[in-house]
Amino acid sequence: MPPDEHLDKMRLELRRGVVIIAVLLQLRTEHYGYALRQALEAHGLDIDEGTLYPLIRRLETQGLLTSEWREEDRRNKRFYVISAEGRSHLKQLLTEFDSLFATIDTLRNGRTR
Amino acid sequence: MPPDEHLDKMRLELRRGVVIIAVLLQLRTEHYGYALRQALEAHGLDIDEGTLYPLIRRLETQGLLTSEWREEDRRNKRFYVISAEGRSHLKQLLTEFDSLFATIDTLRNGRTR
Repeated sequence: MPPDEHLDKMRLELRRGVVIIAVLLQLRTEHYGYALRQALEAHGLDIDEGTLYPLIRRLETQGLLTSEWREEDRRNKRFYVISAEGRSHLKQLLTEFDSLFATIDTLRNGRTR
Repeated sequence: MPPDEHLDKMRLELRRGVVIIAVLLQLRTEHYGYALRQALEAHGLDIDEGTLYPLIRRLETQGLLTSEWREEDRRNKRFYVISAEGRSHLKQLLTEFDSLFATIDTLRNGRTR
């Protein structure tokens, strides 16, 4: 594999876990797919539809989100929101995230945690 | 898949990308495998040998680390250190990491970035 592909793969791995946290955080408030994508983009996270939409459907299948169809602006949209189980997962993922961040932070600055 | 397995898988995904950054950061100073593992543990990151050792060998194959065998305390040990290419990758991974962290941070606090 050429060097740049290694880097791309590493960046993708790094993003993958964080994207789930971002989606769960944003869906503490109800959103339909496109509005979710825009909200995440406003927070600096650009996810293409081909990644985001399968992800939210998968999170719903796993019971971490619930959804309902509703009409808005004369169009039917599927609104997603985090479930109680999703909140519990999110809490534990954030604990892990904080711990990983603290590790990187101290390694960067050469301190012992 | 039962709920707990989903969570474990998500936590693992989250860790995977960060672990590479942690290893590259720590190997700005030369370490042999076991000493690297201890140093990361001191920074709050516990990685088992079965994960860490294949990872550093893979990073060397990718040209991000270099290594040499040397005797220390009357035993031959393989010392690893980051390469110029590794430093370049690390810099870009840290940029991505900072961006992802900023996203999560603002989402958590409900601010717009």
